[in-house]
Amino acid sequence: MVKKASDCAARTGRITTPHGVIETPVFMPVGTQGTVKTMTPRELEEIGTQIILGNTYHLYLRPGIEIIKEAGGLHSFIHWPRPILTDSGGYQIFSLGTLCKITDEGVKFQSHIDGSYHFFAPQKIIEIQIALGADIIMVLDECPPYPATYDHTRQAKERTTAWAKECKETLSRLLATNHPLPALFGIIQGGAFQDLRIESLKEIAQIDFDGYAIGGLSVGEPKEITYEVLSYTCPALPKGKPRYLMGLGPPEDILEAVGLGIDMFDCVMPTRHGRTGSLFTSRGILNIKNAQYARDFTPPDPDCDCYTCRNFTRAYLRHLMNAGEILGARLNTCHNLYFMIKLMKDIRQAISDNCFLEFKGDFLALYQRL
Amino acid sequence: MVKKASDCAARTGRITTPHGVIETPVFMPVGTQGTVKTMTPRELEEIGTQIILGNTYHLYLRPGIEIIKEAGGLHSFIHWPRPILTDSGGYQIFSLGTLCKITDEGVKFQSHIDGSYHFFAPQKIIEIQIALGADIIMVLDECPPYPATYDHTRQAKERTTAWAKECKETLSRLLATNHPLPALFGIIQGGAFQDLRIESLKEIAQIDFDGYAIGGLSVGEPKEITYEVLSYTCPALPKGKPRYLMGLGPPEDILEAVGLGIDMFDCVMPTRHGRTGSLFTSRGILNIKNAQYARDFTPPDPDCDCYTCRNFTRAYLRHLMNAGEILGARLNTCHNLYFMIKLMKDIRQAISDNCFLEFKGDFLALYQRL
Repeated sequence: MVKKASDCAARTGRITTPHGVIETPVFMPVGTQGTVKTMTPRELEEIGTQIILGNTYHLYLRPGIEIIKEAGGLHSFIHWPRPILTDSGGYQIFSLGTLCKITDEGVKFQSHIDGSYHFFAPQKIIEIQIALGADIIMVLDECPPYPATYDHTRQAKERTTAWAKECKETLSRLLATNHPLPALFGIIQGGAFQDLRIESLKEIAQIDFDGYAIGGLSVGEPKEITYEVLSYTCPALPKGKPRYLMGLGPPEDILEAVGLGIDMFDCVMPTRHGRTGSLFTSRGILNIKNAQYARDFTPPDPDCDCYTCRNFTRAYLRHLMNAGEILGARLNTCHNLYFMIKLMKDIRQAISDNCFLEFKGDFLALYQRL
Repeated sequence: MVKKASDCAARTGRITTPHGVIETPVFMPVGTQGTVKTMTPRELEEIGTQIILGNTYHLYLRPGIEIIKEAGGLHSFIHWPRPILTDSGGYQIFSLGTLCKITDEGVKFQSHIDGSYHFFAPQKIIEIQIALGADIIMVLDECPPYPATYDHTRQAKERTTAWAKECKETLSRLLATNHPLPALFGIIQGGAFQDLRIESLKEIAQIDFDGYAIGGLSVGEPKEITYEVLSYTCPALPKGKPRYLMGLGPPEDILEAVGLGIDMFDCVMPTRHGRTGSLFTSRGILNIKNAQYARDFTPPDPDCDCYTCRNFTRAYLRHLMNAGEILGARLNTCHNLYFMIKLMKDIRQAISDNCFLEFKGDFLALYQRL
C-alpha cells in the first residue's frame, strides 16, 4: 500500500510482477480467449492498460495449453508484454459448461465448444496457469449462483477453502523446483451470508495468499446486497495484500468499492457494451443506436480525449452500428476501455491528493445526467 | 503520365485531387458503407493508403445523403483526409437491389435494407456524388451480368453512352455555379464483344472525361476473357488520362493489367478475404484456418513487415479465426491491404526503374508456391 485516504478505506498501491508494476486501484480489461475483444495489444498499451485477464477454461479448451506452451507462454502467443492475470475458470465452468458435476476432488464438465468431457482439479488448475505463464493466478473455487440456499453456500465455501489449500500446496511444491512462479490469489466465497463470508475470509487468509479476491458477487444479486457484503468483508481483509473484487464493472459501483478498500477490478462490461453500442460517458451511459444521435455531430463524450472521441461523431458511430460494421464495435470498445482506465487513473490521483470522496461526489453528480 | 515502360504499356502517373496527389498504378481499398471494413482511418494512412472508395448506392440508403452533407461531406463524416472515389452505385443496384427496372431515364430499384423504392437518374447520381464531396466521381452505367447476349450488351452499352452524356452535361452546368467540382470518370461497357467495346470506348472518349474506367469485367467471366478484353481495349484508351479497371483484385491479374497500361484498381478481395481468413503472401494465398497452421509460430508472410506479420504468428491468427474473434478479421485485413499497397508501390518503383516485366516475372515465380 502506498497511500490510504484519511476519511475512507480507499488506498493506492503497487503490485510488482515479472512483467512490470501495476498501480492500484486498477481496472483489468478481460481477454477471455487470448484477446481483449476487438483490440490490438498496441491499442491496449496506448490507452494505458496495465494488466489484462485471460481465462483458463477458454484457453484450455481452445487453442489448448500445449499450443500456448509451445508458443512460449500466453504473453508471447498473444503478443502482450505487460502483466496477465488468469482466472481459474471455475466461474466459466458453472456458467458455460454443461453436465458439470462438482465433487470434493474437482469439477467434471463438458466443453461448450465440442461437448468433450474434462476434469479440473485444484492441482491441475494451478499447473495449467503456470504453463500459461500468467503473472497472477487464481485458485479453483466454487461460485454458487444467486440466489443460493445457506446450505449450498456453506458447502461451496467449504469446498473453496479445501481447494484453496490444495492450490497453495501445489504452488509450494513447485516453489522447490526453482521455477519462476506467479503470485497466487485466494478467493473468498460465502454468498450474501455474513457469517459464511467471515468464516471464508478467515480460512482463506489463514492459508496466506499473495492477494485476496472476493468471489460470488456481481452474479445477479441486487446492488444493495453487493454493497452490504463488501461493507463487512472489506474491513476484515488482510491490509497489506491486494484485494480483487471479481466481475464488478459499473463506474458507480467501482467508486463505492474503492472507497471500501478494493484495489483490483475486472469486467466484460466495457468490451461487451462496446459491441452493442452502449458508451460510458462522463454524463452516464449513452446508447449510440438511438435515433436522437442520427444527426449529432458531437463526440461521444465531450470530456474524453480517446481516439474515438477526438476523431468521430455520435452520428458516424450510430451509422457504423446500424450498418453492422466492425469498426463501430472497435471504436466503441476502445472508448469504453479508455473511459474505465482514465477513471482509475483519476481515482489514484484523487487518493494521492487525499480527496477521493470529493472526487467520487463530483463524478457521480455529473454521471447519470443522460 | 510520369514514366512509361519501354517494353510494355505499364506506366506511372500522378492524379491531383482536392485532397492530395495519387501516385499510380494505385490500389484503392473499398469503403462501401463509409468504412474500409475493420480498419480505422489511422491504420489506412499508416499502411500508405492513397485513396479509398465509397459507394453511392449504400451511402444514399444509409445513413442518407442529408446526414453526410450536414456532417460536412463524406471526408468529414468518416474522418478520412485523403482522396475518395465514389462509385455510382449502378453495379450495386443490379447485384443487390430487387425489382429493379431499367429504362432510358434511369434505374428504379428497391432498397436491400427496407424494401423502399428509389430512382437513380444520371443527373441525380452526379448531384449525390457532388453532395458527398468525393474527389473522383463516376457516371451511372448499365453493367450487364456475365454471360449476356449480344443484344442485351449492345443495349446496355448504348444506355451507358446516353447516361454518360447526361452526367457530363450535369457536371458542366454545375461548373458554371463555381462549385468546387470533382473529376468525372466515364465507364466503358460492351461485355466480351470486341466491336461493342471499341464502339463504347469511342463514344465515351468523345464525351471527354477526366478519366476512363473499364466496367463489366470481374463479374464472373473466365480470366482469359478479362485478359482478352483488356488486350484490345487498353491500347485504344486515351493516353493522357487515368485508366481505371473496376473490381479487379487478384495480384497476378493486377500485374497483367498494369502491363497493359491500367492505372487504378479497386476490389473487396483484400478486406473480404481478411474476414474469412485468406491471406495474401509472397508465396500465394494462405488459408489461415487450415489445421496445418495450428502450431506454426512463423509470421503469415515472412517477407512482409506489416503490423500483423511483425507481431503475430499463424498459430495465433488461426486461433482468433477459430474462436470467432474480431481481432482475427482485423489483423488479416490489415495484412492483406498492406500486401496490395506494398505490391503497387513495388510496381511503381519497377516501372520507374524500367524493369516492370522482370519484377512481374520474379513476383509470379514466387507466388503460387503455397
